[in-house]
Amino acid sequence: MLSVVPIKDALELVLNRFGAKKTSTEMVSLIEAHGRRLAEDIIAQEDVPDFNRSTVDGFAVQSADLRGCSDSIPALLQKSGESLMGQPNETALLPGNCVYVPTGGALPPGADAMVMLEFTEDLGGGQFAFYKPAAPGANLILRGEDLRQGEAILKAGRKIGVADTGTLAALGVNSVPVFSKPIVGILSTGDELVPPTEDLQPGQIRDVNTDMLRAAVEEQNGMAICKGIVKDDYAALRDACMDLIPKVDILLVSGGTSVGEKDNMPKIMTELGEMLIHGLAVKPGKPTILGEMEGKAVFGLPGNPVAAFFIFDYLAKPLILAMQGGTPEADTVEARLTRAVSSNHGREEFVLARLDGTEAEPVPSKSGLISTVSRANAYFIIPRDQEGLPKGALIQVTRL
Amino acid sequence: MLSVVPIKDALELVLNRFGAKKTSTEMVSLIEAHGRRLAEDIIAQEDVPDFNRSTVDGFAVQSADLRGCSDSIPALLQKSGESLMGQPNETALLPGNCVYVPTGGALPPGADAMVMLEFTEDLGGGQFAFYKPAAPGANLILRGEDLRQGEAILKAGRKIGVADTGTLAALGVNSVPVFSKPIVGILSTGDELVPPTEDLQPGQIRDVNTDMLRAAVEEQNGMAICKGIVKDDYAALRDACMDLIPKVDILLVSGGTSVGEKDNMPKIMTELGEMLIHGLAVKPGKPTILGEMEGKAVFGLPGNPVAAFFIFDYLAKPLILAMQGGTPEADTVEARLTRAVSSNHGREEFVLARLDGTEAEPVPSKSGLISTVSRANAYFIIPRDQEGLPKGALIQVTRL
Repeated sequence: MLSVVPIKDALELVLNRFGAKKTSTEMVSLIEAHGRRLAEDIIAQEDVPDFNRSTVDGFAVQSADLRGCSDSIPALLQKSGESLMGQPNETALLPGNCVYVPTGGALPPGADAMVMLEFTEDLGGGQFAFYKPAAPGANLILRGEDLRQGEAILKAGRKIGVADTGTLAALGVNSVPVFSKPIVGILSTGDELVPPTEDLQPGQIRDVNTDMLRAAVEEQNGMAICKGIVKDDYAALRDACMDLIPKVDILLVSGGTSVGEKDNMPKIMTELGEMLIHGLAVKPGKPTILGEMEGKAVFGLPGNPVAAFFIFDYLAKPLILAMQGGTPEADTVEARLTRAVSSNHGREEFVLARLDGTEAEPVPSKSGLISTVSRANAYFIIPRDQEGLPKGALIQVTRL
Repeated sequence: MLSVVPIKDALELVLNRFGAKKTSTEMVSLIEAHGRRLAEDIIAQEDVPDFNRSTVDGFAVQSADLRGCSDSIPALLQKSGESLMGQPNETALLPGNCVYVPTGGALPPGADAMVMLEFTEDLGGGQFAFYKPAAPGANLILRGEDLRQGEAILKAGRKIGVADTGTLAALGVNSVPVFSKPIVGILSTGDELVPPTEDLQPGQIRDVNTDMLRAAVEEQNGMAICKGIVKDDYAALRDACMDLIPKVDILLVSGGTSVGEKDNMPKIMTELGEMLIHGLAVKPGKPTILGEMEGKAVFGLPGNPVAAFFIFDYLAKPLILAMQGGTPEADTVEARLTRAVSSNHGREEFVLARLDGTEAEPVPSKSGLISTVSRANAYFIIPRDQEGLPKGALIQVTRL
């Protein structure tokens, strides 16, 4: 029998033992950087904008000139020039004058506010009437207001999103330091497995885990090296592990992790490295192995795809992220169970659910039926010390 | 002045007018399919599994043979064979007999339940004692229980996730029908703009929208064709639009959309096609254009990147998804405002926020400061008929 470990403890062990080692840094173009994780803080090298910039079409003024003006007593200013888009405006604005500036244009030195065109009246001869006072700073973006030179605007480990791509473009960061993709070896073992490309003979099933784990790895910026299917044979499986381990940062083996005669992974883990955990106090996922070979994390995932899905998500994904300086973004919401679920096996249990607003409908799942995960869009965990959850219970649901 | 349209009405118009036309279908490999959207329902071509499959190591039995057995009166069965992994088991199980089946192995015909090895006792001579009754169906997955032949397991328009990749592999779907990537033309106009790769001269700013919109388009499976920066020149901008429009499904032009002298897009839209909307009742984003050229949707996005970000997200993204049979997955949560926000301009307002658990902290943003979006992780909308929201208000917050 396995001496099972709580999943929280297993995650802590994974991150403590393997999470501190980051992948190397590589420079990629701004286009390639989207979705990757920053390897260094991004420091603004200059003020953005680097001039005082109008946010309206109108007149740059000295706000003091408009003090006390009103509908009945307008302030009268003389138009002394225009700012052109994309050109510096270096002629200082003198008291009593105004300068036309289009949206996005540079204010002249001496101006401290913008007044929208529609709040002025052209009196002819270059004279304009202003009917409302303007506060200093009105309708403009001050130099450095967006980003100040020296400011760490994006931190290492951050996943570069759409707006971040915009921020990097605004800063002129065209070559972006990101963490290299963690290389993850993937292999499936089991005599009953055939590749999805082959027809099934009676008693055979298709290898689901190779393609599923590759997609899961790539979704976290990992680079997958897929070995395919290895037979339930001690030497073959050991050789496949020995072949992969020098090439990868993390190795995922699915199948062969239990305690049966044909379960070779426990012995191989001990022979080639160190067994850290054999057995998790969770359902599904009990026959999980965690070990180390040549300093690399090796996950012996259960052969059944639903268990492999959950254990990857709970244990391996955080490590792939940690190697890129990131942490899983918890996407959990509080929801109400639409019906009771039972659980009485003394292990934590992952339960699939369909989350609809704040209602969570449990999705019945037998271990191994991967399409049940496709039918769900979320999951929750029943604590090990609870025999189940009643209808209407408030639970934390994690989106898939 | 613009005659502004509420954003909900604008979205409805976009989807009604352009959303029904889907991109073509292409076949891609299972690896490439991840993240794409299905163009057809995926129908199970066979039962999965296509045999009755054990979920434990143990004995296949006829449950009737164990009826009434107990610790004091065990049932005695004769072992008549073993199932091998990946091999069919065609010898029918006879009453009074049992067959060893490993986890994942096929039950012999006639067996209707599995009993775990640890609940039996080897009495020698092939005779085994069973101490507990087994319910029909215990510890096994029935043929077709995962997927039944003819069942539509994944629907057209669905984004293929990690588990779906597993489901497709389980079904042997190696060539996946997905919607082609919508082709989206992107260009920025503005005399003050320079590419992010160039040094800034006084009065110039970098073109943020090209890279940001490309990232946003690619995140929705779109394929971006980036024209770069076009000067504020009527003929140049018109020619650029004429060049792009036959090559794309959607055109995004940012800048030049207001009513100023240098704002050429309104005239070009009318000359080359049809202006549908000029002006949205929203802040930021008022100077937005929606039009049609050669049957394609053309968005005139505001030049300021924050406005372009929001209007893309609210109006253009749903169309890119609709062309692939998808709908935006609302990722909204209810949260409490940590402080009051004001809004008194009679337009709906997008307000950036930092969402932490169920608390939303408004992030101050002046139109145009794209780094403020990087500082936020969510946003909410103040309705146009409200002057603001008080501290502690319960609001619907959308994650970015």
